Amino acid sequence: MADRFFCDDLTSDKPCLSGTEAHHAVHVLRLKCGQSIQLFDGVGTVAEAVIEDIQRARVIARATATSFIQKDTQNSLTVAAVPPKGDRLKWMVEKLTELGVDTYVPLLTERSVVDPRKSKLDKLATTVTAAMKQSGRRWRMEIGEPQTLPLLLQHCKDSDDTILLAHPGNATEPTEAEAGGRTLLIGPEGGFTESEVQLAADHNARQIAWPDSILRIETAAIAFAARLLR
Amino acid sequence: MADRFFCDDLTSDKPCLSGTEAHHAVHVLRLKCGQSIQLFDGVGTVAEAVIEDIQRARVIARATATSFIQKDTQNSLTVAAVPPKGDRLKWMVEKLTELGVDTYVPLLTERSVVDPRKSKLDKLATTVTAAMKQSGRRWRMEIGEPQTLPLLLQHCKDSDDTILLAHPGNATEPTEAEAGGRTLLIGPEGGFTESEVQLAADHNARQIAWPDSILRIETAAIAFAARLLR
Repeated sequence: MADRFFCDDLTSDKPCLSGTEAHHAVHVLRLKCGQSIQLFDGVGTVAEAVIEDIQRARVIARATATSFIQKDTQNSLTVAAVPPKGDRLKWMVEKLTELGVDTYVPLLTERSVVDPRKSKLDKLATTVTAAMKQSGRRWRMEIGEPQTLPLLLQHCKDSDDTILLAHPGNATEPTEAEAGGRTLLIGPEGGFTESEVQLAADHNARQIAWPDSILRIETAAIAFAARLLR
Repeated sequence: MADRFFCDDLTSDKPCLSGTEAHHAVHVLRLKCGQSIQLFDGVGTVAEAVIEDIQRARVIARATATSFIQKDTQNSLTVAAVPPKGDRLKWMVEKLTELGVDTYVPLLTERSVVDPRKSKLDKLATTVTAAMKQSGRRWRMEIGEPQTLPLLLQHCKDSDDTILLAHPGNATEPTEAEAGGRTLLIGPEGGFTESEVQLAADHNARQIAWPDSILRIETAAIAFAARLLR
């Protein structure tokens, strides 16, 4: 398969790579003029292309075929998880991107310990791009702004999303894929507080749990997402 | 919840911690006499206990309650995956343990690039123990000996396991949980060769694939395991 690159403008028949994408093509993969590449814009368009010109910090390609597929927004999956510590956040975002989650929202809860610094969250865009290049996904996973649980629950209610609250101790079977917009809530180490669980219940959240195990944040996010995605 | 420790002999009413487990209790968590702990042997027994004596390299406890649950061996899940590079192997083993996979087998295929060194595989036992302590699982995930694909397929056939071959490009829906022994096969970067896919088909393997994405080894292992586990 041809190497894949992110290119935010695929409307031209001479799409350009710049910045880190150009660097990756020229200096890491050492691609040459005449080689085939694949370009994606993260919002549904994928182009087959051939490298025409390599300049100092730009690669100019010629699109030979372009396809666009509208994203299915009816069955979206948002994962709102408290950011796990250290590398685990990056790892989680990589995996959620590969699997096809639509949006990741850093969730703020009463027991959250990691304050997601803006600089750290900004870097996740690079992680998402790398995971898309590797996995061949067509649509970009969005990284939402950090949100508190009450605001997020209100937002889900307003948009009529099914709310799934991962909460250990409850013996419910993990939920299978179902239709409609869904938001999966993953709490911090130590879990949601009782008042948070009650608040979620007041917003019609359904509790889900993994049998016989207390999963880490990133494991819960990936495992439940894998079960919920079609 | 009380801190959990691995103890391979829970037959005595005075179970002992030694080695790294004693070190963890005394020097990391700084537990004292009289404190409650939970002990597990990884083969079905869990004991509630109280620390009675702390010696130089041993912790002696008194079991106050013991429970044993026989493992359900009828619906076992074995994940046979080519060991991914670097930290990804450790990460994968941690997650498979948390989720409740029964056995991980390092798989050797035609395109395998990482030769699983014995020292590296030996260290996975520590990863499994740590993940059990953290997640509260009762049964240990076994780490099998590295196996070639032909031998593993023959073994699955002999033991009447359902064989599930993760192979991108095929549009099959990811398989839901089903009964009986199952072995999930995850190939290397670059995938199984055509002759390997044919060999698996000759052994009645069913192909499964993740829609619209080429998953990394560890992502595929975790995501398909999450879908297959009950």
